[in-house]
Amino acid sequence: MKIIPGQKAINNVSRRAFVSSGALAILSTRFGMASGGQAQGDPLPSWNEGPAKTAILGFVRDTTDKSSSKYVEPASRIATFDQDGTLWTEQPVYGQAAFALARIGEMAPSHPEWKDKEPFKSVLARDHAAMGKFTEGDWLQIVAVTHAGMNTEVFQQLVKDWLAKAKAPRFDRPYTDLVYQPMLEVLQYLRTNGFKTYIVTGGGIEFVRAYSEKVYGVPPEQVVGSSGLTTYDISSGKPVLMREAKPFFIDDGPGKAIGINLFIGRRPQAAFGNSGSTDMKSGDAQMLEWTQAGEGARLMMLVHHDDAKRVWRGC
Amino acid sequence: MKIIPGQKAINNVSRRAFVSSGALAILSTRFGMASGGQAQGDPLPSWNEGPAKTAILGFVRDTTDKSSSKYVEPASRIATFDQDGTLWTEQPVYGQAAFALARIGEMAPSHPEWKDKEPFKSVLARDHAAMGKFTEGDWLQIVAVTHAGMNTEVFQQLVKDWLAKAKAPRFDRPYTDLVYQPMLEVLQYLRTNGFKTYIVTGGGIEFVRAYSEKVYGVPPEQVVGSSGLTTYDISSGKPVLMREAKPFFIDDGPGKAIGINLFIGRRPQAAFGNSGSTDMKSGDAQMLEWTQAGEGARLMMLVHHDDAKRVWRGC
Repeated sequence: MKIIPGQKAINNVSRRAFVSSGALAILSTRFGMASGGQAQGDPLPSWNEGPAKTAILGFVRDTTDKSSSKYVEPASRIATFDQDGTLWTEQPVYGQAAFALARIGEMAPSHPEWKDKEPFKSVLARDHAAMGKFTEGDWLQIVAVTHAGMNTEVFQQLVKDWLAKAKAPRFDRPYTDLVYQPMLEVLQYLRTNGFKTYIVTGGGIEFVRAYSEKVYGVPPEQVVGSSGLTTYDISSGKPVLMREAKPFFIDDGPGKAIGINLFIGRRPQAAFGNSGSTDMKSGDAQMLEWTQAGEGARLMMLVHHDDAKRVWRGC
Repeated sequence: MKIIPGQKAINNVSRRAFVSSGALAILSTRFGMASGGQAQGDPLPSWNEGPAKTAILGFVRDTTDKSSSKYVEPASRIATFDQDGTLWTEQPVYGQAAFALARIGEMAPSHPEWKDKEPFKSVLARDHAAMGKFTEGDWLQIVAVTHAGMNTEVFQQLVKDWLAKAKAPRFDRPYTDLVYQPMLEVLQYLRTNGFKTYIVTGGGIEFVRAYSEKVYGVPPEQVVGSSGLTTYDISSGKPVLMREAKPFFIDDGPGKAIGINLFIGRRPQAAFGNSGSTDMKSGDAQMLEWTQAGEGARLMMLVHHDDAKRVWRGC
């Protein structure tokens, strides 16, 4: 989340920074608000001094110094970032899930049958216990009615309209405020040093594109994400792209490495995620692993929310 | 193809330029080598004066002039280009088909059974009449053995190695020399004016990425193309992306509009293709149509090779 001056319980994130050096070196540190003592012109003022910050600064210094053996040509300076849990909060539910649940509520008057039909019934009854037990099939039904059956422009407008009015319940603030200030600093710091910053998200590519430029400074063409099938159609004499209720590409787990290769066509020099167990089929492990397998200087960083004192981890 | 001083039979291309003005205005002109009379500092010296050149210059002037009602913010300046037949020659066969046929020859010693098995038998016998009648299924078999069953890095290296040694038979020059000089000028002119230039090709995305930066100045992340399924695997402890013999995305016809939306997430301001019949399921029609359906200034241009005197059209 953004660091809001005066607010008490805020950012604390402990990190493990993977620095490429043959084997994985696991570092650990914490960052918080600037608390004095930082050098003037510090590009990462929200980060505490420590190995993670040192690793980022060192990586950028090495890759941008022409006299360094680790120098990287500007064209190859690609950095990829997971979104949920890395750039913004993923608790208590993913932002996109909150959007879908809100849409169910908005659409309910046209669907009286939902009152008696799961999974819609539990959503409309705000039965959090039942929702917590939703299967993948339940979520697919919810996504189908809220994300498909409309064209791409209508969908993007729905997302923008929701973001403009929705408030995350705990903080009563827009979801797009619940971004991690330290990560915004890293995004900006890398861009200042000639890196092209990409979001590589398991979330929907068109959902994230609706706000990525405004919130993260990442333009639509630098968002890689999951997508449903779209089809080309002519509606009232005008071409439209219709969103179908059928998954097309799942940009998660192994899909993140596949998506990076497909959409970007270059291996990242740096990658940031928050879920890194390599035996998982979801999360960021393969993105980090794929990044690390490249030659030269590579920075792999795993944001790990494991300190309840200073970061809000959700309910 | 590149204009080679001293060579006799070269570029002549007649074009229809679609300029967005509610209905399609079909213009027609020709371009050739600079023949004197061009203004100094002409950004398009290989283009004859005429409506197509005027349309391009006018489009760039309008979209980059802050006082114009047609001004376009730099971030939205996206221009997309078909490759085969638009940026380089597609005669007598697509460059990628030439690569595949050459690979069959190279692989033949390990496949003695191909001597008696179609479609390989005809390829190895250089039976052009038979190859001319190959079905889509025949080509899929050829693509399967030449483009799949290896990892993405191995494939890119094969393409680079082939491009370094292969010569297009008619000109005895590398395939990457057979690019249209006037289109190189348009690519550069648009980039000079803040446009991001993309290749949107029915050809293979990884095939084109192997040379797009060197030949066209278009980096890998600005190539949208067709792709086969890739899977994530670990080989000798190292992650690899394996190319499977299964189509994943066909970036052709309606797929070009879908691909632009999926990979770029913005509607182009300008699009260039060479096959434009809207009842076709392949080619550039839908890319041009999708571009035209946007608001404000849009430039749609159809390169049409219909003048045998000055352009080489193949066999």
